[in-house]
Amino acid sequence: MNKIQSKIKPIIFEENKVLILDQRLLPFEKKYLEITSYKEVINAIKSMAIRGAPLIGIIAGYGMALGAQESIVGAYCNTPLQEQLKIIADEIKNSRPTAINLKWVVDLILNDINNLKEPDEIINTIKQRAIWIHEDDANRCQKIGENGTKLIPQNAKILTICNTGSLATGGIGTAFGVILASHLEGKNIKVFASETRPRQQGARLTTFECIENGIDCTLIADTACGYLMQKKEIDLVITGADRIASNGDSANKIGTYQLAILAKEHNIPFYIAAPLSTFDLKIKSGDEIPIEERNEKEVKEINEKLICQKEVKVKNPAFDITPAKYITGIITEKDILKGNYKDEIQKVFNAVSVA
Amino acid sequence: MNKIQSKIKPIIFEENKVLILDQRLLPFEKKYLEITSYKEVINAIKSMAIRGAPLIGIIAGYGMALGAQESIVGAYCNTPLQEQLKIIADEIKNSRPTAINLKWVVDLILNDINNLKEPDEIINTIKQRAIWIHEDDANRCQKIGENGTKLIPQNAKILTICNTGSLATGGIGTAFGVILASHLEGKNIKVFASETRPRQQGARLTTFECIENGIDCTLIADTACGYLMQKKEIDLVITGADRIASNGDSANKIGTYQLAILAKEHNIPFYIAAPLSTFDLKIKSGDEIPIEERNEKEVKEINEKLICQKEVKVKNPAFDITPAKYITGIITEKDILKGNYKDEIQKVFNAVSVA
Repeated sequence: MNKIQSKIKPIIFEENKVLILDQRLLPFEKKYLEITSYKEVINAIKSMAIRGAPLIGIIAGYGMALGAQESIVGAYCNTPLQEQLKIIADEIKNSRPTAINLKWVVDLILNDINNLKEPDEIINTIKQRAIWIHEDDANRCQKIGENGTKLIPQNAKILTICNTGSLATGGIGTAFGVILASHLEGKNIKVFASETRPRQQGARLTTFECIENGIDCTLIADTACGYLMQKKEIDLVITGADRIASNGDSANKIGTYQLAILAKEHNIPFYIAAPLSTFDLKIKSGDEIPIEERNEKEVKEINEKLICQKEVKVKNPAFDITPAKYITGIITEKDILKGNYKDEIQKVFNAVSVA
Repeated sequence: MNKIQSKIKPIIFEENKVLILDQRLLPFEKKYLEITSYKEVINAIKSMAIRGAPLIGIIAGYGMALGAQESIVGAYCNTPLQEQLKIIADEIKNSRPTAINLKWVVDLILNDINNLKEPDEIINTIKQRAIWIHEDDANRCQKIGENGTKLIPQNAKILTICNTGSLATGGIGTAFGVILASHLEGKNIKVFASETRPRQQGARLTTFECIENGIDCTLIADTACGYLMQKKEIDLVITGADRIASNGDSANKIGTYQLAILAKEHNIPFYIAAPLSTFDLKIKSGDEIPIEERNEKEVKEINEKLICQKEVKVKNPAFDITPAKYITGIITEKDILKGNYKDEIQKVFNAVSVA
């Protein structure tokens, strides 16, 4: 398949700054935030001006590059650059707890510069690596799309949750990459976007990316997923992931777990699409993945207006864990993993480390 | 149990008018609409100023009373009153398709007046019946609460969807009646209210009724139900119903069906609470229950503000059908039905018709 270019650019890197498309304002306003410090990168991640596990990884790389530049020109330069960068790295890694890509990128960069001494060399190495990570993710998305489209039948009606497209990655997306690749192959697909409360990434971002790409798309409330499956309006479910344990258990946007159960009950395939950077081989199962609990305002307010009384208590987990047994297949840039995920994941990582 | 009085009055009947609490404005504004014609009743039902299957039945009764008064004083009085009332009855019955209580009430009234001739007698009969239906529903709710609380363990964590309390019935509610009765028995329950998109009755109305009654309540996004069950934060699910077929298949607010599947997967009981007026013995199964498709604006707009691009397509079913096999028990004012619903339902109706 030819390289698929995305029209949407959520991150633009320039010499001493990063432009971040503020996703909180989409699809109504297309405004870039000009970011010149790593602290601003952390704020953008925490406030979800930028989101999506792979994209958070990419911006973390640029955050390290900005941090390195700040360090050397700052007044606190008595501390060796390597030590400053370790502090910055920890701060960036801790900005959100669930997605692993963030840690993967930061650790990769720390490893790159481990034996370097010259500040200029360190800064350039980080910058080059950050750019590479961005491009590399685009390439991984392309391959995920090419691999995943093999699973998508002609005229498929596809349910997805949250946003996993250009706005979540460095390229065409993960689950959305599969959708886009299938659309471009002429498969005449129909997408159902679950709203994805509380932050409505399905309603705001996935419908937007579908429209931009000319893909037939229908928005539904998160409560209507089971009904549509019962009515045979859904042929398969595909989602992204924020972290995948070595046994295949997958963390993703809150609501994913219940879609997987619904898919099983209706004998519909449930796929996850994610690059290898999403896998956390250090953990045995999903039990070890921390689930971020976010501000209650996300549930209680929409467009800054209360939807319930002020005093209402809220529980707002941002992610859930789908046990491997519910997952029909995990689509990666290398292969589609199926069956015994523990062995399959080990195999694909062994092949990568040999290659 | 002593008679439980509700503080919330969604309908107040006065001689020639009905005051309807406009539920679209709750919990922020408590405004009554003054209704003096049956057409206004139909508008209030269609626009969901008033909602909840039993309460729709009650307002339908008052709508018939208003219609009867209008008919006799109108300029179109050449038509016999009985015939006029049949037209009005059909209009009222067709205002919303899924809830059966509406039809139950209107047919009861038509049956009452079938052999009457005198306009005054007809009007008075309808009025008395409408008032009786209102009070009768309150009594049924009380008994549903008393029966249902036997199923609620001490310290139970209860998940519910939509609103099934004073705002949905003539009394303390159906599923919410069970919750309230359990609370008043000192069972130290915790309620989780699922937001219930698109119209957010869980967020707006159920949390409001919990706070009014001093019940511990936590609002969650509809996407978080499966996660909370997985984390063992939910001991049981209880919902209302809009129509129950003679085999036990139950129509209720969109999202109920998927909760029933999730409950089954987590080995959690899933109960429905509904008065006998909710049962439609004329239909064999849920397949025969029409599902109302409502305006796409309900999904696309919140507080009259778009949550997605204007051109986004929407599918907005208002109800879904939960097959009987997923229902652990149906709590009625007579009995708790379990096991073979077809037989159990027949048995309870046989006993009622004999009594």
